[in-house]
Parts: sequence; structure tokens; C-alpha cells
Amino acid sequence: MFRNVFELKTDKRIEIVDVTNEIKYIVGKSSLNSGIINIYSQHSTSAIVVNENEPGLIEDFKEAIKRLISSNENYKHNRIDNNADSHIRSFLLGNSVTIPLENGQIDLGTWQSVFFVELDGPRTRKVIVTIIGD
Amino acid sequence: MFRNVFELKTDKRIEIVDVTNEIKYIVGKSSLNSGIINIYSQHSTSAIVVNENEPGLIEDFKEAIKRLISSNENYKHNRIDNNADSHIRSFLLGNSVTIPLENGQIDLGTWQSVFFVELDGPRTRKVIVTIIGD
Amino acid sequence: MFRNVFELKTDKRIEIVDVTNEIKYIVGKSSLNSGIINIYSQHSTSAIVVNENEPGLIEDFKEAIKRLISSNENYKHNRIDNNADSHIRSFLLGNSVTIPLENGQIDLGTWQSVFFVELDGPRTRKVIVTIIGD
Repeated sequence: MFRNVFELKTDKRIEIVDVTNEIKYIVGKSSLNSGIINIYSQHSTSAIVVNENEPGLIEDFKEAIKRLISSNENYKHNRIDNNADSHIRSFLLGNSVTIPLENGQIDLGTWQSVFFVELDGPRTRKVIVTIIGD
Repeated sequence: MFRNVFELKTDKRIEIVDVTNEIKYIVGKSSLNSGIINIYSQHSTSAIVVNENEPGLIEDFKEAIKRLISSNENYKHNRIDNNADSHIRSFLLGNSVTIPLENGQIDLGTWQSVFFVELDGPRTRKVIVTIIGD
Repeated sequence: MFRNVFELKTDKRIEIVDVTNEIKYIVGKSSLNSGIINIYSQHSTSAIVVNENEPGLIEDFKEAIKRLISSNENYKHNRIDNNADSHIRSFLLGNSVTIPLENGQIDLGTWQSVFFVELDGPRTRKVIVTIIGD
């Protein structure tokens, strides 16, 4: 077992940040060979997803998130904090992923990266990486 | 490794139940210190999610689920059982989450709770908690 | 710990394939008794989900995916590769699930199957099954 936490700063309200290198660095430090890697965000207005890092596609993801969950509904949570849209988008995307570890490396496909999805930035965020294996 | 199952009863067709205390109780019984916690629903018309427990936001989540997946489509599954909408909502949200364990505690963020999402209640439901760690 | 990979071939652009038997076979080979099973797709235009295998419902899932994420937006990724819709659908559904293992068996509910969701077929796809347990 190995655990490490890293921080990141976001600049925009909605931002998709490739964190694959941060995770590869932690996997390397762990000296573990095979098992699984859990990547977890402690924030209820963020998400963790796996997909392809292509700049046009990143823009398409952001537009799709906005289209799926509108910012202009009469949300009850907005009486308290003006970010119900961010929470509902996070609720839908999920705040963690679990990925295989093999030969000491994160076993992503050729076209896969791990993304932190900021849904209520700019903020400083914390991501927990837990590796279970041999 | 430690495993435990708990049951809950729901009262409404769509209901979002905070089960964080049930999970904390199981984590305490496990005497495990660090690793990961998998929370799994055995039901295809339910979901498990992590987000903030604020009463207005819970209502917003329910409305968002209904808006995203309409109950009024001509679903093929409704020839057999009148709950295609519930299944499709579950399909979208996912029926498990995996969360880090640290210092003998579930490592949720300050504003995070674990929710069982009932999508076809009222029913009695079973949630499996599996902890892998030291 | 036990790891195995299986391949599958899809025939349609959108196709939902029940892979529960492939996973049960791998679980049997592992000789592990209890823990968790991570099922992971290495492809950014696919998903892994758990739900009920009823033919009408499978059709409803496919229609719901198409309705949620339209193929007819002016996606930026389509300048490079004509499958932005497939990526966004995968982004939303997620490319892995983690399921408990108990008494040497995958601990699915009565009405649960594991599905590989093809979102940009026909293709040959690879699914990684990693079991952590005793």
C-alpha cells in the first residue's frame, strides 16, 4: 500500500487539467509493481475522469457539461452558495477513478489521460492517490 | 480486508439518503488503518454518489435527475416493468464509489457525504462495504 | 492479487455487450475468495457499467445515450476525428467499475450484469480485470 496527495491550482470556473504526470510520479515513488490505483478528489464541485487529451475535445467536454446541466435553473442551493450547477455536474461525473497498475506503471490505454475536472474554480484543490498492490 | 453489509429502507420513488454514518460505523469495526473503501449497491435502480449534504442541494439533485432522463419516453423496458427511467438514471450515475481510508477513517473532504440514491422506491436496499488495507 | 485481460469484438457503432461470463471465468481462475474486482476499459470511446440485462432496456440505454449527447453538435474534436460524441458519452458514463468479491464469486445483485459499452464501434476492445483480495 502507498498513499500520496498532490495539490493543483485552477484558473477558470470550468477547467479540465491533465494530472497523468502527477500520478505517474507518485506511482514511481511507490515502488509497487501491480494492483490498482485509486485517484480521489475531496471536493464536491470537481470530478476525476479518464479520456483523451486532445485540445479540441477538452473544449467539447466543457461545452457538453454546460449543456447537460444548465446554470440558469432556479436552484435551491443557490440561496446559500451560488454553485448548485457545479455540484450537480460533479454529482453526474463522479469524484474518483480506479485504474490498474502493471509492471510498475499506471495501465492507461494509448489514448487515455487522467483529468481533474474543476467545476467551480479558480481554487486550490487536493487529489489523493492510493495504490493497493504488490 | 473487512466486509460488512447494511440495509436501508426508502420511502419515496426518488430519495437521496446520507449513509456516511453507516459507513463510518463499519470502518470503525474493521480496525483497519489505511487503504480504500468500496461502497457498492446491488440494485440496478439505485446509485451511490459522493457530494455535499445540504437540503436545498439534495432537492436540486432530484430535479436534475428527472430533467436529464425523462419518465415520459416510450421506453421498451416499460412493457415488462414500469421503471425504465429508474434504470437509465442508475446507468448514468453508477452504483458504487471507492474512497480512501486514512488514520482509521474514511477520508472524505469537509463538504463530502456518501449518498445512497433511491431511483425506484420505496424499497428495502442492501449496500456492501468492502475495505482493503492494513 | 490476480490480473487477466480479455478481448471482445463489437459490430455496431453503439453496442452494449454483457461481459459478466468473461469476468466470472477470470474470477474462477483467480482462486481468490473475498475482496474487490476492478473492471477497466483502456479505450476512451467506451464505458463499463453495471445494470440489468433485459433486451428492451438495452435498447432504451442506447437511445438515452444518443438523446443525452447529440451527434449533431459542431464539435471541435471532429476536425481531427469524427467521434467527439463517442468521447463525450464515455466521459459521462466512466470507463471502469469496482465490484465486491465474496465466497469466490463476483457479488452482483440478482438483476445485475456487467456491460462493456461500445460507443465508437465496430472495434476490437481490451478489458482488464484486476482482483485484490485473499
